[in-house]
Amino acid sequence: MAKKRVMVAAKNIDLSAVEYEQEEIKAPHLTGLAFKLFVWILEAPIIGSWIISLLKKENKMTQLLRNTVIPEAPMFKPEYPPQEPEPGVVALDEDGKPEDRVEVALKCLPQYDPASCWNGDSTPSFRYWKIRDYAYAYRSKIATPSVVAEHIISVIEEFSNKKPPQPLLISFNPEEVRNQAAASTKRFEEGNPLSILDGIFVAIKDDIDCFPHPSKGGTTWMHEVRTVKKDAVSVSRLRSCGVIFIGKANMHELGMGTTGNNSNYGTARNPHAPERYTGGSSSGPAAIVASGLCSAALGTDGGGSIRIPSSLCGVVGLKTTYGRTDIGGSLCDAGTVEIIGPIASTVEDVMLVYSAILGTSLADRISLNPVTFSPPSVPNLSLYDCLNSLGSLRLGKYTAWFNDVYSTDISDKCEDALNLLSKTHGCEMEEIVIPELHEMSTAHLVSIGSECLSSLNPYCEDGHGARLSYDTRTSMALFRSFSASDYVAAQCLRRRIMYYHMEIFKKVDVIVTPTTGMTAPIIPSSALKDGETDMRVTGYLMRFVIAGNLLGLPAISIPVGYDKQGLPIGLQLIGRPWGEASILRLALAIEELCAKSKKRPASFFDVLKSN
Amino acid sequence: MAKKRVMVAAKNIDLSAVEYEQEEIKAPHLTGLAFKLFVWILEAPIIGSWIISLLKKENKMTQLLRNTVIPEAPMFKPEYPPQEPEPGVVALDEDGKPEDRVEVALKCLPQYDPASCWNGDSTPSFRYWKIRDYAYAYRSKIATPSVVAEHIISVIEEFSNKKPPQPLLISFNPEEVRNQAAASTKRFEEGNPLSILDGIFVAIKDDIDCFPHPSKGGTTWMHEVRTVKKDAVSVSRLRSCGVIFIGKANMHELGMGTTGNNSNYGTARNPHAPERYTGGSSSGPAAIVASGLCSAALGTDGGGSIRIPSSLCGVVGLKTTYGRTDIGGSLCDAGTVEIIGPIASTVEDVMLVYSAILGTSLADRISLNPVTFSPPSVPNLSLYDCLNSLGSLRLGKYTAWFNDVYSTDISDKCEDALNLLSKTHGCEMEEIVIPELHEMSTAHLVSIGSECLSSLNPYCEDGHGARLSYDTRTSMALFRSFSASDYVAAQCLRRRIMYYHMEIFKKVDVIVTPTTGMTAPIIPSSALKDGETDMRVTGYLMRFVIAGNLLGLPAISIPVGYDKQGLPIGLQLIGRPWGEASILRLALAIEELCAKSKKRPASFFDVLKSN
Repeated sequence: MAKKRVMVAAKNIDLSAVEYEQEEIKAPHLTGLAFKLFVWILEAPIIGSWIISLLKKENKMTQLLRNTVIPEAPMFKPEYPPQEPEPGVVALDEDGKPEDRVEVALKCLPQYDPASCWNGDSTPSFRYWKIRDYAYAYRSKIATPSVVAEHIISVIEEFSNKKPPQPLLISFNPEEVRNQAAASTKRFEEGNPLSILDGIFVAIKDDIDCFPHPSKGGTTWMHEVRTVKKDAVSVSRLRSCGVIFIGKANMHELGMGTTGNNSNYGTARNPHAPERYTGGSSSGPAAIVASGLCSAALGTDGGGSIRIPSSLCGVVGLKTTYGRTDIGGSLCDAGTVEIIGPIASTVEDVMLVYSAILGTSLADRISLNPVTFSPPSVPNLSLYDCLNSLGSLRLGKYTAWFNDVYSTDISDKCEDALNLLSKTHGCEMEEIVIPELHEMSTAHLVSIGSECLSSLNPYCEDGHGARLSYDTRTSMALFRSFSASDYVAAQCLRRRIMYYHMEIFKKVDVIVTPTTGMTAPIIPSSALKDGETDMRVTGYLMRFVIAGNLLGLPAISIPVGYDKQGLPIGLQLIGRPWGEASILRLALAIEELCAKSKKRPASFFDVLKSN
Repeated sequence: MAKKRVMVAAKNIDLSAVEYEQEEIKAPHLTGLAFKLFVWILEAPIIGSWIISLLKKENKMTQLLRNTVIPEAPMFKPEYPPQEPEPGVVALDEDGKPEDRVEVALKCLPQYDPASCWNGDSTPSFRYWKIRDYAYAYRSKIATPSVVAEHIISVIEEFSNKKPPQPLLISFNPEEVRNQAAASTKRFEEGNPLSILDGIFVAIKDDIDCFPHPSKGGTTWMHEVRTVKKDAVSVSRLRSCGVIFIGKANMHELGMGTTGNNSNYGTARNPHAPERYTGGSSSGPAAIVASGLCSAALGTDGGGSIRIPSSLCGVVGLKTTYGRTDIGGSLCDAGTVEIIGPIASTVEDVMLVYSAILGTSLADRISLNPVTFSPPSVPNLSLYDCLNSLGSLRLGKYTAWFNDVYSTDISDKCEDALNLLSKTHGCEMEEIVIPELHEMSTAHLVSIGSECLSSLNPYCEDGHGARLSYDTRTSMALFRSFSASDYVAAQCLRRRIMYYHMEIFKKVDVIVTPTTGMTAPIIPSSALKDGETDMRVTGYLMRFVIAGNLLGLPAISIPVGYDKQGLPIGLQLIGRPWGEASILRLALAIEELCAKSKKRPASFFDVLKSN
């Protein structure tokens, strides 16, 4: 067990108090035979590593590299070739107020027709309550945020007492929800809602800071070593729009898994089939949205963690371009693959939440101006009105890959949706080839694993490692085996694979795949207590998501139907860097085309209508 | 021993021939007790790593990450905050012809007075023959390149038969030199020299491609696995200016050392004291220039490898800003710390060579437009005429560090030069503090070591590793011990240290230090056959050079005098990113101020006058 050292942020170091420390190198001076002997021993299997580790400890290298919390992010970011701005889009001001951005986004949506929802008919003509349904209800006094809050609170309490329990939230404080709801209700009474998002209920994944909740990241101890003092940037943006946060949603521990299994807080269950996984790591966020409890949730996606559970739970999940949303205030804020993005029941709601949270204010997190990492000066958002120009978008499909799924239900339904899209909007489908998909997986695993381990090392080495679940410990053992040169090799692979994708994006605008290679897997009862390892399932779940993370590309998962067992199937659209507008636009169209086939999940809770 | 796989460059992959390969994940599905047992075993010291390595081999990860030659560079580069262009400088066209750039640079120099050199007096009024002395001699028919070539060839042959031998070159072909010289001589006869550099003799470090020579990087085998088919970018730029290449200069094996010890080809000896090291790793380049054999040499600098030998041999060495010169065609073309730069006997000659080689044409090496790594659109070069405005440049000195040298001779001489500069030109000296210097060393060691190992791994694993010198094998053993998370941690440290430096550069324009903490160390006779390890010497030699590499800052070493033993002392000027103009300007001024104290080295060869 090694004591950890916590570095003060560079920008807070008082330079006048710095004292010069003489270098003290502890190593023998060797020449001749002694030197040759030394090298032979160094190269011997076990003793060699031992001597090296001894020398490194003596020279304080181990302490610095493995037992020190370094607050700065690594000094590199994914590099993109320059991108043309997307045609026919509305620019949003990244530095402006979130409320103003939401307002602009709202204007991009088709006109809202209250009659379609509030026609007095008890059978809802839509599947989920949309943000604009709530907004209409609040403004026309059909409901108040406080009344909705009471419903949500009672359902959450009911859910956690169910058999099997549905552990949706890791941190939940009914009073806190009531207070937020009361404030929102008051704003409506005074006729001053902050935005269309005022009074909208949102869940936040447990690895994103949402004050005053702790951020445990699904562990039992992260909050002991890391105190939450304020909202994450994206949470604070939503808060300024009037959003009500219901608490911290369940997740796969530290995001290191794709099923959502969590032996610490219980495993969230799929609203479509409680004996099955939600997918992960954003298990709680997807399940909460799928259950109809919240309009939206924020998740993180470093290896499909937004898209996989969205696909398995039949909701919409957006993985944003790397750097498009601010990662500040999340547990994984120092990596090159992870982003924060929205999950919602409809593309429209994803767009509204996305418009509120987008924009990177790296200034207070990284002291260097990140000028070398330049998104287009203003981000863009889809114009719903542009749907009629969708025909100009070319879709790339790698058929052999597309069809490499557990059941043909998946590829068939995805294909059907795309055919419908081609037929209705005239989008052309092009056959593409993506080489080195396994190399892509390996490069991603090494990147995310090493970046994750690097930020966790100081805590794991000081004794918290043993308090992780078996699942995470398996991953950590693998990650620890990666050498620094492996990491560099992975970055070389990354450049190759980026090259291939950029070549493909010369031919097509969007790459289409199923989101996952299988629908929601069954939770083995033996896996409830201590988790499980099943790389085959992981392989199926992650098969199509990697490019989004390794290359930082935007990608969205949208439900397109159900397999024979009634489990949701997701279609994934992968866009060019900064190409959110194109994939959101296509997603809107596909959603509309697939609307008829939509079913409510078994555990859907009608939070607004039941009022 | 593992067979290596060589990947074809991504841009040369025929996409139509790519076949889809199904993923085959080989790992057990475990839950419950079996899973817990598995984790316990995984976490056990030796067997755990063994199982992980078995699983990684089964899934071909080891082969991909350690036994594959990946031709692409890693997908990250140092990130710089934006920089204001330097005031009072002339812009050179990075994409233009090298000959044109040299022409512009030439106009920035003070007028050339042949009388000062060619006054018929046999005592030269200068220390070294400058490029313009040769140029004048050729143009006024005092000498021809062919005549000079014969002198150089005879000296090189004499040097290598000396006792002790002076192994300056690893690859040398007299006929090749004669042919180049004859072509140049012909150009002069026809009155058509290509540029001021026509007929100028230059040595190329053995890790930079110079066709038709092999690039061994100081090893006995690198040329067997890597064929040289053309010049490195910077070499080809010099060639188009008419430069004559005398061969491949000796170096510390693979650049992994700072003394210049090379047990394969013999250790180059310091022209000022043959029982002492030249410093390294660019040992040959510095010794060749210091001996008066060539006007200039190209070296590489990943950890002081240009500046250290320049300092120890009493010549001028420029470490350019990362990315300012093209690294393409050198052995270490995939790192984040290494650059190619010139070594010459005077600042003026460094400027001329630098003006010819500058500019990055990454296009043919990295297929992605490196838009995120943006130097100012045009690079800048110092105006000699601007010397009278030097007073506006503020010099930063961290006294405790500056004085932390082996002998006070070093700090005293450096201080004297700076005082002279202040007195003459009015430059103000500011006391600065640079925190975390040891952290900087560690971050650098991990970065350069891992990047180097990553590119060497496939060769080392397939049996060539055992053919490396003991010296290199010691370094490799250390580098192999770095984990991927160590590498990430090093990049976090890098960002911190960049922050500190950018803060310092708000107060000062240039950071001044001695180049090395000691003058040329003695070569232990026991170290000639098998090398040596002496981290204390390494520590002294590298003490001041790291910021240039870890942060990619430009830095220059200029001779400012001698210690009591008559060994040269170098002063280092570290500039802002892309701030070559400022440090070159100051270096010109300091060189002029220190000119009187200059002595020819013991083994100086008067290649032009003796004609």
